[in-house]
Amino acid sequence: MYEKILYATDFSDVAKKAFQYVKGLWGSGARDVTILHVIDMRSRELMDSIETMDALAVEKGWEEDAFNEISSLKSDLEDEGFSVMTHIEKGIPFKEIIRVAEEENASIIIIGSHGKSAITEMLLGSVTEKVVRKASRPVLVIKR
Amino acid sequence: MYEKILYATDFSDVAKKAFQYVKGLWGSGARDVTILHVIDMRSRELMDSIETMDALAVEKGWEEDAFNEISSLKSDLEDEGFSVMTHIEKGIPFKEIIRVAEEENASIIIIGSHGKSAITEMLLGSVTEKVVRKASRPVLVIKR
Repeated sequence: MYEKILYATDFSDVAKKAFQYVKGLWGSGARDVTILHVIDMRSRELMDSIETMDALAVEKGWEEDAFNEISSLKSDLEDEGFSVMTHIEKGIPFKEIIRVAEEENASIIIIGSHGKSAITEMLLGSVTEKVVRKASRPVLVIKR
Repeated sequence: MYEKILYATDFSDVAKKAFQYVKGLWGSGARDVTILHVIDMRSRELMDSIETMDALAVEKGWEEDAFNEISSLKSDLEDEGFSVMTHIEKGIPFKEIIRVAEEENASIIIIGSHGKSAITEMLLGSVTEKVVRKASRPVLVIKR
């Protein structure tokens, strides 16, 4: 029931809180964790529209940061005995989360209630609400 | 993290599925379960507006059914070692769920994604979506 966890993170505080709930499921049989971070390509498009921004450099920076953050989460989980897979995807976050959950046949999705970017969420709606609405799998939402 | 569970049920199939996830958290330290059923008073008001219906008798029937269903869930959990409290409340479901979660200081709310009454959900919106949006505690949503 709780064996394969998909943990979606944008590295926000609430995502970090959700990470504790991932670890806490070990006793209930959780063994495999997929850590997923999605780089929102709509932000990239927004940046492209601002002439003074070097969108490519910013995106490269995001990827590097994501890689470092995810590597550290991975070792943390491995120290506890979990098998860990990592994904950094580019796209529309809720769609990528649902796609990866299906592909990896996740038993449960664990996610924070709110993303890092309050403005993006206001404009585009909450990623988490869409995941809860559209996923076919159980979703554990951790609140701020 | 998972010690005190609030399990909200309308006795639908998806709520029954969610019940398995309640039991499954034993290994992660779950010990106390509050089983909550809310009788939607807006349905009662709807019935009152239909002259040919004996709303009071229908409501009494609902209460009896709820009592029987909850008693059976309670013994099931007690057999597994859980301490169990039960609540049958009347009101607006999402508000009662949030109120009881606060009162009981629940660590987590477990709930099915869709209610029994598709028509009520269509008219009034999903109880679960409102719980996810408004609760201050983690919510585990089990999907159909």
